[in-house]
Amino acid sequence: METETIPNATLGAFCKENHVALMHTSTGVLDGLTFATKDVFHIAGSRTGFGNPDWIRTHSEEETTAPVVKSLLDVGADMLGRTLTDELAYSLSGENFHYGTPINSAAPDRIPGGSSNGSAAAVSGQVVDFALGTDCGGSVRLPASYCGIMGMRPTHNRITTEGVIPFAPSFDVIGWFASDATIFEKVGSVLLDQPAISLDVKQLIIAKDTFSLVDSSVNQAFKPIIKSLADQFELTKEINVSQDRLAHWFEIFRTIQGSEIWANRKQWIKEFHPVFGSGIRERLEWTSTIDSQTISRAHSEHAEIKNYLTNLLEPDEILCLPTSPRVAPLRGTETNTLEIVYRTQAMNLLCIAGLGGLPQISLPLVTQGGLPLGLSFIGAPGCDMNLLALAVSLVSQPSF
Amino acid sequence: METETIPNATLGAFCKENHVALMHTSTGVLDGLTFATKDVFHIAGSRTGFGNPDWIRTHSEEETTAPVVKSLLDVGADMLGRTLTDELAYSLSGENFHYGTPINSAAPDRIPGGSSNGSAAAVSGQVVDFALGTDCGGSVRLPASYCGIMGMRPTHNRITTEGVIPFAPSFDVIGWFASDATIFEKVGSVLLDQPAISLDVKQLIIAKDTFSLVDSSVNQAFKPIIKSLADQFELTKEINVSQDRLAHWFEIFRTIQGSEIWANRKQWIKEFHPVFGSGIRERLEWTSTIDSQTISRAHSEHAEIKNYLTNLLEPDEILCLPTSPRVAPLRGTETNTLEIVYRTQAMNLLCIAGLGGLPQISLPLVTQGGLPLGLSFIGAPGCDMNLLALAVSLVSQPSF
Repeated sequence: METETIPNATLGAFCKENHVALMHTSTGVLDGLTFATKDVFHIAGSRTGFGNPDWIRTHSEEETTAPVVKSLLDVGADMLGRTLTDELAYSLSGENFHYGTPINSAAPDRIPGGSSNGSAAAVSGQVVDFALGTDCGGSVRLPASYCGIMGMRPTHNRITTEGVIPFAPSFDVIGWFASDATIFEKVGSVLLDQPAISLDVKQLIIAKDTFSLVDSSVNQAFKPIIKSLADQFELTKEINVSQDRLAHWFEIFRTIQGSEIWANRKQWIKEFHPVFGSGIRERLEWTSTIDSQTISRAHSEHAEIKNYLTNLLEPDEILCLPTSPRVAPLRGTETNTLEIVYRTQAMNLLCIAGLGGLPQISLPLVTQGGLPLGLSFIGAPGCDMNLLALAVSLVSQPSF
Repeated sequence: METETIPNATLGAFCKENHVALMHTSTGVLDGLTFATKDVFHIAGSRTGFGNPDWIRTHSEEETTAPVVKSLLDVGADMLGRTLTDELAYSLSGENFHYGTPINSAAPDRIPGGSSNGSAAAVSGQVVDFALGTDCGGSVRLPASYCGIMGMRPTHNRITTEGVIPFAPSFDVIGWFASDATIFEKVGSVLLDQPAISLDVKQLIIAKDTFSLVDSSVNQAFKPIIKSLADQFELTKEINVSQDRLAHWFEIFRTIQGSEIWANRKQWIKEFHPVFGSGIRERLEWTSTIDSQTISRAHSEHAEIKNYLTNLLEPDEILCLPTSPRVAPLRGTETNTLEIVYRTQAMNLLCIAGLGGLPQISLPLVTQGGLPLGLSFIGAPGCDMNLLALAVSLVSQPSF
C-alpha cells in the first residue's frame, strides 16, 4: 500500500518527500494496530531521508525493508508513514533546521525532544498506536518524557539494527513509543521475540545521584510516585550509582559516540559538503577532531563502567531515575541553552543505560505544572520483558 | 567500470553471478593498486550474495556502495571484483556448499579458511594487491594464517560497517589482507584515517596459555621466531592471559555471537526457508535455541572479560599468540572434525581479540612442513597503526 495522504499533516510529524505507507503482510498479535517509523529505517522502494535534504538528495531508493519493520507488518500492524528525525539523528531537541518541529500534543508550545521527534509526536498526537525510533544517547527516552508517552530502549544488540542507518554502534539500539501499556508490551514481545511475563521486582533501587542532579521542583514532582513505589515493592534502597561521576561518564560516552559518528559519516560529509543546522554542525565538526589516544582512553574507561553497570542489578531489581532533568523546553529556546546546557544535563542521566548496554523505559507517571515528566527504570541486561511488565503494572494503575 | 571478465576464474575466489568491478574515483596513496571485496559489502547497482543462493535470489540490487569501498576508490585503488564468502559468513572453513572452495595458492590441496575465503585466496593467488574481508570470530585472521598472507582485525567500532551485512555486531569488524607489508599498512592508514607511525613496542608479552593449547610440533615451528622476537624487544614476559579459561571464554563468545546472528537472520530464515550446507545449518538451528537468561549471563561475563582485556596492554605493549592451532586442513576434511573439533580449537584462540574489541594482526612468519602458519599480535585498543608498523618491521626483515 502506498498512499499520497500524509497522516495528520498538521502535526508536522510525518515525512512528506519520501512518504510511504505499508499494509500488514499477515495477521497476528498486532492486528488492527497502526504504527509509524522514524526516517532512519530503510523501506524498500523509497529513499531514507535521515533528517537532512542533502542526505536524501545523495541517496537512492532502498531495495530492502528493515527486518524489524517487516516483523511488525507480519503480525498484523499497518505502517501509516515515516516520521521526521533530527538531522542525522544527532540532537535531542526535535527542532529540525530544514523540516521544522513536530507538534508535541502534550505541550504544544514546547519542543517534542529528539532525535525520534516525529515518532514521539505521532504517538502523543494519537495518530498511530505505536512508533519506531532509535536511541543512541536518549533519542527515544527523552522525547517520551517530553511528550508524555512511554518509550523503550532495549538491551544493546538484542534487536537487529539491519536496514537502519548506523550512528554510533557501541550504543545504537532501535526503540519504540506507545501510549497504551499493553500495546507497548506487545510490540516488545514481537521485536524481542519473547513472551510477556509477570512483573518480578524484588527490589527498587533509587539512583540518588541522578535525582540530586535535577532541580528541587522536579524532585518535588517525583516525590509522591517514589513514595508510592517504595510502599509497593518489598525492598527499596538508595544508591549512588556513579559515585558522583555522571559528568565524567558523559564525557566518556560522548567521546566514543562522537568518534563513531565521524567514522560513519566522514566519507559522505567529505564527498558532498552538506548543509547542517546550528548545534549539529558544531558537534559534527567536533567529532572530526577527536584523536585516537582520547578514543582509546575512553574505551578503557567504558569497559570498566560497562562491567560495573552490567553486573549492578539482579534480574529482579530495577533502578529508578528521572528520564530528563526537566519538562520539555519551550519551542525556540536559545540554541546555546538548548544544545549545550540542557543537552549536557540530560545526557548526564541518559548516558547510564547507554554505557551499560542496559534496557530502560521512560513512563509518563508524573506532571509538573501540567507538563509531562518521565520517570525511568533501568533493568539488568536482557530483562526487557520485566520492564515492559512494570509499564503494564504502573501505567494501568488508576492511582498514578 | 563494469566488466564481464571474472579475474582469474581458475582460483574460484571471485563471485560470478554478481560480478562487479569499479575504477578508482580519484587519485591518492593507493594509486595503481587493485583490490577485491568480500561479498558482504554492498555495491551500488548489484546484489550482495552473502554466500547463499537463496540470499541473492531474495535480495535486490543495492543503491549505495559501502563507505569503506568508496574510501579506497577515492585514493586511487581499483576494485577488480567481489569475492566468495562462506554461507552467511558463519564458518571458518572456506568450503562453500553452494559455490565451492577457492584455491589456497600457498597450499592448493588445503582449504583457504573462511569466512573471507575468496578475499584471502585472491591475495594469496596474487590476483589483487589487497582485499577486504570481515572478521567477527576470526574470518580474516584464520584465512590469513592458512593462506600465508597478512590479515588485520582492527579495533572494534573504529571503522564504519555501514553498507556491510551485519552478523554479530558485538564483535563485527571489517578487515583486510595483503602480501606486501607496506600496502597492508597503507590500506590501514586510509581506512582508519590515521597516518603511519614508527614502531613503538617496549614489551612483547607471550600469551603462554594460547601456545599451550597448540600441538608441540606447532610450538616447535614457532620457537625460532619467538626467540628472535624476544631478542629484538627490550622487555619480554610470559603471561597466562585467560587464567586457563579460553574454553569458557569461547563459550561466552559463541553465546553472544549466536544470539546476535539469530536476531539478525531470523526474519529472513522464517520468511524464505533457505537451504544451508552442513555445519552452518546446525549452527543456525542452535542459535535459535539460546534463551534470554543464558544470553544475559554471557553479557555479564563478557563485560568482565572485556574490562580485563581492554586494560591489559599499554599502547607500547603487544601480546603474541598463534593465529591458529594448525596449518590449513586438507580439502574435504570430515565435517565433524572440521566444523566442531578444529573450529572449537581455533575459536579458543581467536575469541580473545573479539571479546576484548582489540586489534590483531596475523603475519606469515612461519611455515610448518612447507605450509604457512600465522603468528598473531594483539595491541591495546586503538593501537592499530602500531600493529601495522610491526608488520612492516617484521615482514620486510630478510631474517624471517
